[in-house]
Amino acid sequence: MRNICAFIGGDAGTWTVTSQRALCGEPLAEARAVERVDSHAASPGRHDPAWLLRGQPSNIRYATRAEVTTLGARQEPLGRPEARRAALIPIAKSAAWWSLAQDERRAIFEETSHHTAIGLDYLPAVARQLFHSRDLGEPFDFLTWFEFAPEHEAAFDALLRRLRASTEWTYVEREVEIRLRRS
Amino acid sequence: MRNICAFIGGDAGTWTVTSQRALCGEPLAEARAVERVDSHAASPGRHDPAWLLRGQPSNIRYATRAEVTTLGARQEPLGRPEARRAALIPIAKSAAWWSLAQDERRAIFEETSHHTAIGLDYLPAVARQLFHSRDLGEPFDFLTWFEFAPEHEAAFDALLRRLRASTEWTYVEREVEIRLRRS
Repeated sequence: MRNICAFIGGDAGTWTVTSQRALCGEPLAEARAVERVDSHAASPGRHDPAWLLRGQPSNIRYATRAEVTTLGARQEPLGRPEARRAALIPIAKSAAWWSLAQDERRAIFEETSHHTAIGLDYLPAVARQLFHSRDLGEPFDFLTWFEFAPEHEAAFDALLRRLRASTEWTYVEREVEIRLRRS
Repeated sequence: MRNICAFIGGDAGTWTVTSQRALCGEPLAEARAVERVDSHAASPGRHDPAWLLRGQPSNIRYATRAEVTTLGARQEPLGRPEARRAALIPIAKSAAWWSLAQDERRAIFEETSHHTAIGLDYLPAVARQLFHSRDLGEPFDFLTWFEFAPEHEAAFDALLRRLRASTEWTYVEREVEIRLRRS
């Protein structure tokens, strides 16, 4: 996956919005459904979207080879037939976060906040794909897309609670949570 | 600096091309001059450019706090009146590089190849700004812009020789070097 993806919030789409809320910062306009498309194929005019958010899968920014190998052995791809629930969580971090050096951000991300370790506890149930948006001049820094079966929604709630309680999250200044079910 | 910048190679501009060559991979079309503008202000049609390359200053990817502090104490900004020579070096690295984990890329970048340490040897003479292009879907992964006084051109040559002899450079699969003088 090397193309810029676009998430389009509008009236109709593959994923129906079941809830949408801003946890901090400015909310997004309300959408009834979300579609994920290749950015080149995005024709906003045709969909009359509430919003259009773009992101790039990009390369790994913090994980070590040992972590990548552990994740790879346990994670499953997007698009599993049983994964009829999804969530799109756009996040922006503060200027203070982005002015940190690489070792400082890594230490907060993993040694202090255990971001990867927490995610591992919910594999393979919760599949996940991160899209980087900051360098594209987008309003959010990242878009994370999650997919899981309906019976794993409580586990997903627990995952979010643990991440949001971390030191890393004190640098989050805008976060919107959009829950979805396959239309 | 948080806006996407565009480097426009064309017939006229603030910087006159004194030489242009591909060190590896496909060359760029020949340009007589280069202009650096905010990406939003780039109107390629007006300039009839040979090429237009975009990049984002972005956040630090490898340097530690100690390295950032050392660099900050010695580096000088772009735009010094005496810095009448410049170079634009667009680079693309291989898929093998981008599939490495963060710790593997960091180890090659600094512990093995001493990228930051080599750059430090040429401060404050050679001012430098890195622009990230890969996530923008550009043909190059980075654009590096250097500025220096004419009497430091030999030092700049030495800097390039040392970096190109490093293990990191075995991952470079396209590199173009454009030398410039202030018009």
